[in-house]
Amino acid sequence: MISFMNDYSEGAHPRVMELLMKSNLEQNIGYGEDVHCERAKKYIKQQLQREDVDIHFIPGGTQTNLLVISSFLRPHQCVIAAHTGHVNVHETGAIEATGHKVVTMPAIDGKLTPAAIIEALESHSGEHMVLPKMVYISDTTELGTIYTKAELTALHKLCKEKGLLLFLDGARLGSALTCKTNDLSLEDIAKLVDVFYIGGTKNGALLGEALVICKEELKEDFRYMIKQRGAMMAKGFVLGIQFEALFEDNLYYELGRHANQTAEKIAEVLQKCGYAFYAPTCSNQLFPILPNEVLEQLSKNFIFMEQAKVDEKHSAIRLVTSWATTDENVDALCEFLQNI
Amino acid sequence: MISFMNDYSEGAHPRVMELLMKSNLEQNIGYGEDVHCERAKKYIKQQLQREDVDIHFIPGGTQTNLLVISSFLRPHQCVIAAHTGHVNVHETGAIEATGHKVVTMPAIDGKLTPAAIIEALESHSGEHMVLPKMVYISDTTELGTIYTKAELTALHKLCKEKGLLLFLDGARLGSALTCKTNDLSLEDIAKLVDVFYIGGTKNGALLGEALVICKEELKEDFRYMIKQRGAMMAKGFVLGIQFEALFEDNLYYELGRHANQTAEKIAEVLQKCGYAFYAPTCSNQLFPILPNEVLEQLSKNFIFMEQAKVDEKHSAIRLVTSWATTDENVDALCEFLQNI
Amino acid sequence: MISFMNDYSEGAHPRVMELLMKSNLEQNIGYGEDVHCERAKKYIKQQLQREDVDIHFIPGGTQTNLLVISSFLRPHQCVIAAHTGHVNVHETGAIEATGHKVVTMPAIDGKLTPAAIIEALESHSGEHMVLPKMVYISDTTELGTIYTKAELTALHKLCKEKGLLLFLDGARLGSALTCKTNDLSLEDIAKLVDVFYIGGTKNGALLGEALVICKEELKEDFRYMIKQRGAMMAKGFVLGIQFEALFEDNLYYELGRHANQTAEKIAEVLQKCGYAFYAPTCSNQLFPILPNEVLEQLSKNFIFMEQAKVDEKHSAIRLVTSWATTDENVDALCEFLQNI
Amino acid sequence: MISFMNDYSEGAHPRVMELLMKSNLEQNIGYGEDVHCERAKKYIKQQLQREDVDIHFIPGGTQTNLLVISSFLRPHQCVIAAHTGHVNVHETGAIEATGHKVVTMPAIDGKLTPAAIIEALESHSGEHMVLPKMVYISDTTELGTIYTKAELTALHKLCKEKGLLLFLDGARLGSALTCKTNDLSLEDIAKLVDVFYIGGTKNGALLGEALVICKEELKEDFRYMIKQRGAMMAKGFVLGIQFEALFEDNLYYELGRHANQTAEKIAEVLQKCGYAFYAPTCSNQLFPILPNEVLEQLSKNFIFMEQAKVDEKHSAIRLVTSWATTDENVDALCEFLQNI
Repeated sequence: MISFMNDYSEGAHPRVMELLMKSNLEQNIGYGEDVHCERAKKYIKQQLQREDVDIHFIPGGTQTNLLVISSFLRPHQCVIAAHTGHVNVHETGAIEATGHKVVTMPAIDGKLTPAAIIEALESHSGEHMVLPKMVYISDTTELGTIYTKAELTALHKLCKEKGLLLFLDGARLGSALTCKTNDLSLEDIAKLVDVFYIGGTKNGALLGEALVICKEELKEDFRYMIKQRGAMMAKGFVLGIQFEALFEDNLYYELGRHANQTAEKIAEVLQKCGYAFYAPTCSNQLFPILPNEVLEQLSKNFIFMEQAKVDEKHSAIRLVTSWATTDENVDALCEFLQNI
Repeated sequence: MISFMNDYSEGAHPRVMELLMKSNLEQNIGYGEDVHCERAKKYIKQQLQREDVDIHFIPGGTQTNLLVISSFLRPHQCVIAAHTGHVNVHETGAIEATGHKVVTMPAIDGKLTPAAIIEALESHSGEHMVLPKMVYISDTTELGTIYTKAELTALHKLCKEKGLLLFLDGARLGSALTCKTNDLSLEDIAKLVDVFYIGGTKNGALLGEALVICKEELKEDFRYMIKQRGAMMAKGFVLGIQFEALFEDNLYYELGRHANQTAEKIAEVLQKCGYAFYAPTCSNQLFPILPNEVLEQLSKNFIFMEQAKVDEKHSAIRLVTSWATTDENVDALCEFLQNI
Repeated sequence: MISFMNDYSEGAHPRVMELLMKSNLEQNIGYGEDVHCERAKKYIKQQLQREDVDIHFIPGGTQTNLLVISSFLRPHQCVIAAHTGHVNVHETGAIEATGHKVVTMPAIDGKLTPAAIIEALESHSGEHMVLPKMVYISDTTELGTIYTKAELTALHKLCKEKGLLLFLDGARLGSALTCKTNDLSLEDIAKLVDVFYIGGTKNGALLGEALVICKEELKEDFRYMIKQRGAMMAKGFVLGIQFEALFEDNLYYELGRHANQTAEKIAEVLQKCGYAFYAPTCSNQLFPILPNEVLEQLSKNFIFMEQAKVDEKHSAIRLVTSWATTDENVDALCEFLQNI
Repeated sequence: MISFMNDYSEGAHPRVMELLMKSNLEQNIGYGEDVHCERAKKYIKQQLQREDVDIHFIPGGTQTNLLVISSFLRPHQCVIAAHTGHVNVHETGAIEATGHKVVTMPAIDGKLTPAAIIEALESHSGEHMVLPKMVYISDTTELGTIYTKAELTALHKLCKEKGLLLFLDGARLGSALTCKTNDLSLEDIAKLVDVFYIGGTKNGALLGEALVICKEELKEDFRYMIKQRGAMMAKGFVLGIQFEALFEDNLYYELGRHANQTAEKIAEVLQKCGYAFYAPTCSNQLFPILPNEVLEQLSKNFIFMEQAKVDEKHSAIRLVTSWATTDENVDALCEFLQNI
């Protein structure tokens, strides 16, 4: 069986593993205050073209999301998200468990718009309702789409005007930044959002997300929060080393690009076969709509996720590629699709 | 500088790294449902001599503590701990952040006694106070001491009689189980407590704790809790592989033993030098009381933690050894101590 | 200005005040363990035709809702509510502040259906999502509608089948039980739901809701929860005395009936005037749709709430009557409506 | 049986009831935005000699405590309290349930000192521990003692210097302010603390505490918090009316004075009888140490609380007087004590 189930089926990219091996017997300071974390932060800040951000390495995405939201909101404040947003759907109420409501708005292709945010603001008035204070978006979104620079700028402006914090979940930022149609750089993002993270788990690391706090007022005491939520690793250098490897020579982008290119190859075959898509194709997640009998055949040799039932005879599935996706596996899938 | 600061300064034991490398490019199922986690659980169950436990791999200790306590207590219930307990002192209020009070009792050498628990129960009566429902102990304790089989049996009996859950934090269980004076086996512990964990981070792993739920009623839906608290790793196999390596051929015990033996060597020298100890010496944590001028000299070449000021002229420090402690470093320290 | 803003503009019904005055200088036991609370519970149990329920008097509705939901759910469990449900919209995230997600379903006229609950269950699968465990309904609903015996029985059956707790918010139960079209008794409700409350604040009391726990497993330690959430009043007898007055001779029903009858009178005039309604008219809340210019005129002499903009020229408003609504005020409103 | 159990055994002072009766059928705006609340605030501000405070009426003390602490602390911050503090002992973990640790310090006669606070600060360092940010004191304390102006000034200075918020629980402030030895006025208190409340429940009201927020930065959005915690009463005017009655002509002080004077009378008799006291006598709470056989006799005719076992033959009890304590009951107790 060949898996296109997700982008976290393999371990870390060999160059990441290599650096872990190389530094394995060093004595490092604990809790993320070591030289590797410092170096990784330096490399990332170079990408951001600025020094005045705080960077923290967090083990996983849900943890980063709950940390950010619970640390920056007061008790009565809520976060606005697309109804498809990861924090709403697939985190077992992690945000609510910290005391905050997630207010959701309908979103096309997983993307939140200024109009939707304004609508959310207008439907919340006064002290009998929660107070919207943060906007959560993800790039790529849960449907594999990306935000353009114009779109992110529009969100930035609105948030600034309305006093909202803008938080970008970059669990799949590696893929987003290397999409063909992408026009956003890390530098842009750091200017346009208040806090975001650069996902490692889904782009070459064993685990780890690099959280970037851009807004000065949000920086204070954040390490207390990390510790309190159980996200401060004794061996914090394990995360630092990985981001060092990913960012010392642009490996991060290379891996994202590979994931996108393998997806593109598959997408082309799907299009040639005449299949429609449940969401626009752009990054390392594809959502083709397949006849149920094709799906049945496919599932005999390939592992993937069923996304949604489209009608009686068709279903949308999710195919995901990653840095680790091999040409052999892509070819096997393409061949299968062309011959069925 | 040579560090005796803690037991999490190095990466993972080479045999753990080796298995990570070997399986790095396999395609594994996500979220801890892979074959490595299965294998690791099988090995641990063999040690426990029983099949009817649930085992979950959690990234870190604070996370495991907050998960266990918040999942098994109802809102009005509290946990009883030694005043030195990690959950009370060094977790930035992680337990309270989940809504539960930690009721602390004075404890000699970090160990909770039946008498202290009874006192805690007697001082809590009725609905205007929290209801004690769980007892938290650690082995080794935060002061490096261990529980004997007789002591743990006494705690077990009392807890059973009083309807309390007994939870053992085994962040340093590797050292505890291989102490010279230890008479407890993993099998014993699984019989005597309701839930405990086998610490990987401080005994050979990059990260990871193996949580063992022994009591049937506590098992239900625990994976939901793991996910909600952000402790379910996408690449759960990274934890499984490490515990597989630690338990497939008793590496775990070997590493604990090494840590203890190196500590013992240092302890002998300290004793010969005539230094007293702040807490009994037994495991991989030593708490010698040193004259301030010795301490000052020591700090020029060695890294360690200051534990407590004992009097105007003396302080207790903490020296920690681990699986990674080398003979060279031990010799350097011993030589220094003997020659000062 | 005459207010039809809500059903909590006046103090308590004179007979309630009378009993408060009469017992004012008695020495009563604190925290709701007094003879008045006992007597009130006895009267309510007589209405329920059963002894095996626990009754607690809670100061307010939001408090009762958050108490019930947070006490009976485990951390990963959520409550299903109509999207119009009070716990979703108008409690400033009180439920989420206790750690639980409110999963909402579209609902016609404020009423949750078995189909909607099944849909909610089907869209939640597995540990990456919250686990639905409770259903929240209100009677009357936030739109003034009521559940029939058949409807409540259907919800009861489904909840039992699916292992869900059924919780009925009866903040306006006085009005619901005395609706012309109502076929539910308190006895029925106690059989069909697991927990519910009988609202005092909106039906004759200064404050207070009588929470009835019907399900045996939910009773344990509930007074701890009341205390923890700040809902245990030192002078609990103040609540007990009021429910004693409301239930010793059916004053509660009398007051609900008065509220409904005055509303009916107004509804008839509105219908005669040819106005449509935003929600079916039945209880003490009316939602007529008025031309904006009528609304403007109305607002010069009457206080009411704007419910929703219907189109450019029309808005729905909410008119509420209560036990305290006078004939004079009703006549004034009717006259105004007929003459505009 | 005559009760000296507590100061909340009776309803409200007749003048409070009178105003409730008088305004009972008025139509008032809901949620504490009515004219009575406004008037009560005006009267209280006159006592404080300042306009720039926010005043909110909250149903009860535990609720006020949890509201204040959870609203003003960020997740990692804790409150320092005397080990005897109400928030630590007798609120069923209400503070922890909002996510915050209560750090307790030993306190003589229930009073927190600058030295104790400094000790608490010094024992908390860095992100692995909670961050002290608020100091909780009560006046009178749980042992009936009061703070002098000098003592409160010292606490104020220290808190200012250390960036700590100072919160005074005035559930029994009526008794404190009218103690013979008291030298603090409401005006002083408003200058020296950041937030405090004036207890109504224990000094003449049916229920209600007047929370005064003195520090500008703490005022924002507080009504959201009140609503979220279930503390915003639909009929907020019920609280406003009571404080209006208590403060329009100094009834509040009159009632406190009465409570203290009746306590003093009893204290004199106890002293004459040669009994020692568990805590200094000053306000409306007395803690005499009685031989067990006296205690046994006493309990046949009087209701009171046992405070602590002092030795095999003696126990300390708590006797509480209030505005409602009658001369007859005081005489009966004094006579009993003198004749045993």
